[in-house]
Amino acid sequence: MAVVTSTVPLSGTVEQAEVARRADAFVEELSQWLRIPSISADPGYHGDVARSAAWLEATLRRDGWPTVEVWSDTEALPAVYAHWPAADPDAPTVLVYGHHDVQPADLSDGWSFEPFHPRVVGEELRGRGASDDKGHIAMVLLGVRAHLAATGAAAPAVSLKLLVEGEEESGSAHLAELLAAHADALACDEIVVTDTGMVDREVPTVCTGMRGMVDLEVVFHGASVDLHSGQFGGAVPNPVTELATLVAAFHDDAGRVAVPGFYDDVREPTAREREAWAALPFDEPAWLAGSAAGATATAGEAGWSTYERLWARPTAEVNGLHGGYAGPGHKTIVPHRASLKMTFRLVADQDPARIKALVERFVSERIPAGIDAEVSTGGPGVPPLICDLDSDLVASIREAMGIALGAEVLPAREGGSGPEALLSTELRAPLAFLGVMLPGDRIHAPDERAVLPLLLAGAEAVAHLWRLQGERAR
Amino acid sequence: MAVVTSTVPLSGTVEQAEVARRADAFVEELSQWLRIPSISADPGYHGDVARSAAWLEATLRRDGWPTVEVWSDTEALPAVYAHWPAADPDAPTVLVYGHHDVQPADLSDGWSFEPFHPRVVGEELRGRGASDDKGHIAMVLLGVRAHLAATGAAAPAVSLKLLVEGEEESGSAHLAELLAAHADALACDEIVVTDTGMVDREVPTVCTGMRGMVDLEVVFHGASVDLHSGQFGGAVPNPVTELATLVAAFHDDAGRVAVPGFYDDVREPTAREREAWAALPFDEPAWLAGSAAGATATAGEAGWSTYERLWARPTAEVNGLHGGYAGPGHKTIVPHRASLKMTFRLVADQDPARIKALVERFVSERIPAGIDAEVSTGGPGVPPLICDLDSDLVASIREAMGIALGAEVLPAREGGSGPEALLSTELRAPLAFLGVMLPGDRIHAPDERAVLPLLLAGAEAVAHLWRLQGERAR
Repeated sequence: MAVVTSTVPLSGTVEQAEVARRADAFVEELSQWLRIPSISADPGYHGDVARSAAWLEATLRRDGWPTVEVWSDTEALPAVYAHWPAADPDAPTVLVYGHHDVQPADLSDGWSFEPFHPRVVGEELRGRGASDDKGHIAMVLLGVRAHLAATGAAAPAVSLKLLVEGEEESGSAHLAELLAAHADALACDEIVVTDTGMVDREVPTVCTGMRGMVDLEVVFHGASVDLHSGQFGGAVPNPVTELATLVAAFHDDAGRVAVPGFYDDVREPTAREREAWAALPFDEPAWLAGSAAGATATAGEAGWSTYERLWARPTAEVNGLHGGYAGPGHKTIVPHRASLKMTFRLVADQDPARIKALVERFVSERIPAGIDAEVSTGGPGVPPLICDLDSDLVASIREAMGIALGAEVLPAREGGSGPEALLSTELRAPLAFLGVMLPGDRIHAPDERAVLPLLLAGAEAVAHLWRLQGERAR
Repeated sequence: MAVVTSTVPLSGTVEQAEVARRADAFVEELSQWLRIPSISADPGYHGDVARSAAWLEATLRRDGWPTVEVWSDTEALPAVYAHWPAADPDAPTVLVYGHHDVQPADLSDGWSFEPFHPRVVGEELRGRGASDDKGHIAMVLLGVRAHLAATGAAAPAVSLKLLVEGEEESGSAHLAELLAAHADALACDEIVVTDTGMVDREVPTVCTGMRGMVDLEVVFHGASVDLHSGQFGGAVPNPVTELATLVAAFHDDAGRVAVPGFYDDVREPTAREREAWAALPFDEPAWLAGSAAGATATAGEAGWSTYERLWARPTAEVNGLHGGYAGPGHKTIVPHRASLKMTFRLVADQDPARIKALVERFVSERIPAGIDAEVSTGGPGVPPLICDLDSDLVASIREAMGIALGAEVLPAREGGSGPEALLSTELRAPLAFLGVMLPGDRIHAPDERAVLPLLLAGAEAVAHLWRLQGERAR
């Protein structure tokens, strides 16, 4: 493996030095882990998910964590739990959450190399999971080592708990079960989630919120078979036209979601947040060409910036709409069926159950005569999560990252949805994020990578964080 | 073969008797022809299309037609031409147009029997082509035999020409070429098209018009790949939502096509036609459950009846709309692409070229920022056709059918589109229809059938028609 040289300004702290000493070994170790294709979505790889959990268990034991367990007692794929109590019994307990399963990856998806043969190219470590989320879990482990080395203590300054689940990329389907089954072991004062990033390499940010989500599926049925568009067209309802009309009705001309009551509970970002977001550099052409994969214009709700649209505004997004003929040439039919899949991203304080009810009513009021409709909003949905910007936890994270990255860390959010609200609610603890993923890390896409100097800076930030939290608690 | 007994009131004419004498042989003969799977859409069956042409050629020769030719000199699949001059050189020349190719048919499509193993069930002959159009060509041949037998003459009362093409079910792609290459042979005073029917068995009608057609294909492109709906949703255009919005824009709240200028050249049906159509019995629940295959309501342009919507009003019909994810569960994406196929049915005097231009402008004005669009309106389109209700030709057909069917024959139209306008324009002759297909004949669908007593009555009508046209010409 190549020797890692940092392109991030060095803080000169003891923690930074302890991380740097371990950099090459870190890359070696993480690369080993990345060779295990722990794809939770594919049952054919579930043996590898178990191997990945065993690898992490062995690594934690080597590091000296007093308690290390692989949990396989629920329906969930193997999750790894570890606990390292602080010497001071009154020190706070911090639970770090992440996952060791990865998105599916195959050379045929467009990878330029075998996705589970990781490689270092310049300052990047490339391979599935390098960033999401094995790289970030390895970063935490390195941070703990650096913290202990820097303080010279036998135990961390806070009581550390680690929960690394094995099916986040499959929707954390059994996480609630896992949390309930191990409520005592997981009891904590604060939660830190690693599965997150910054808006730009040059702009250190901390994620302070994620959007929630509600699903919608609608199927419109007309006749029992496709009808001849000459013999019947113009005299019977066309399910595709009708479903397209429903889709069009979901937004008004200003790009707002037109479902009555949809915005009732939306908490607008504070003036401070909007100012901070406005201060973030945003190169729209570069963002469109790069992150947004060649989209040629931004779009969305009038009156809000791109970051605001992504982080603080809810959406009604069509994921798929299908009806009728799709082959070559023409088929002159009135299709008999059309189907729609949508997801609604939610922001605080929208309640998934209430939004589901509003959406269901909106659809049910727009089913035309002659159309039989199936309407489903699936499971309970995912609540949005928002961090308390004024909390000690967020302040400590911003401070720790600021030291490691040599710049003020601004608040940002992410537009995606994860199990964070579930964690925070079930464990009754505030939650915040610490991660250094970049938009260009191509997570969930071919040629995933992590920027090694950022992972090392992240490890240093982790080391600072335990120290700062310990100091604050004293 | 079963003996055919008529369930249609018998006219008692000589022609009817001559048809009846030949009924069992007719069923035997037509059944032979139906065993040849002359599917023009599938090159694997083009040998059978040629066999079908040869069968017809041999049958016409046996019947004594002086000129019989199989035309294979153009790109068109084999077409059969025949000519039987009247004794009187001043008698008018009538060209009968039909086709001997059939729609694809396979047991796996839902047939209850092998589609090319025809069978008589009660008064029905069942098999692919029994009605569309072999049954109707055989009906004409039988009519000519009955006409000659009834008059005792060696030649028909009018000069008869027959053009039975071999690729109507594939869109008559080379018919223009065929007409141009054989313009002299096809020269005629009037054209009779067999490929048509009546609105109901109990309601003799004659088709007096068909709709034209224009195609539209639109593809909307967003980013180069699907984007994560959390990371990008709400801030980039969604091609599916945008295309659905375009689809919704094609109709106003009254069900009218919203393309400016679309109705400018629409010739409204006359008061006489509207009265005649209003007098046609229409059992809406039965029509929906039967013909319209379980559609549960009529729909369309406000202010017009179902027959008017189908026969006299143009449409904008979505044949297919596809974009994004269609698999099980959910995929949280902003799709990168959406595609639309539409057909516009036209009525007299809408011009396909002008409608294409209007539609293209309508779409081009509705391409949102950030969307790259491909817009295509394909070939030249099909002009609408309308018959002259006051012509001798239509009057003779109504009289001939009226004698055979024992009831007044009301004018009706069809909503589909065919090569009739091309025939009439290229051959510079007025065109009318004579056919006894029923909506329940399941043409283009599994278990196609013809009602034998109606085919026999149709043959009798054909025999009367030549006599009436000969009398009118004297």
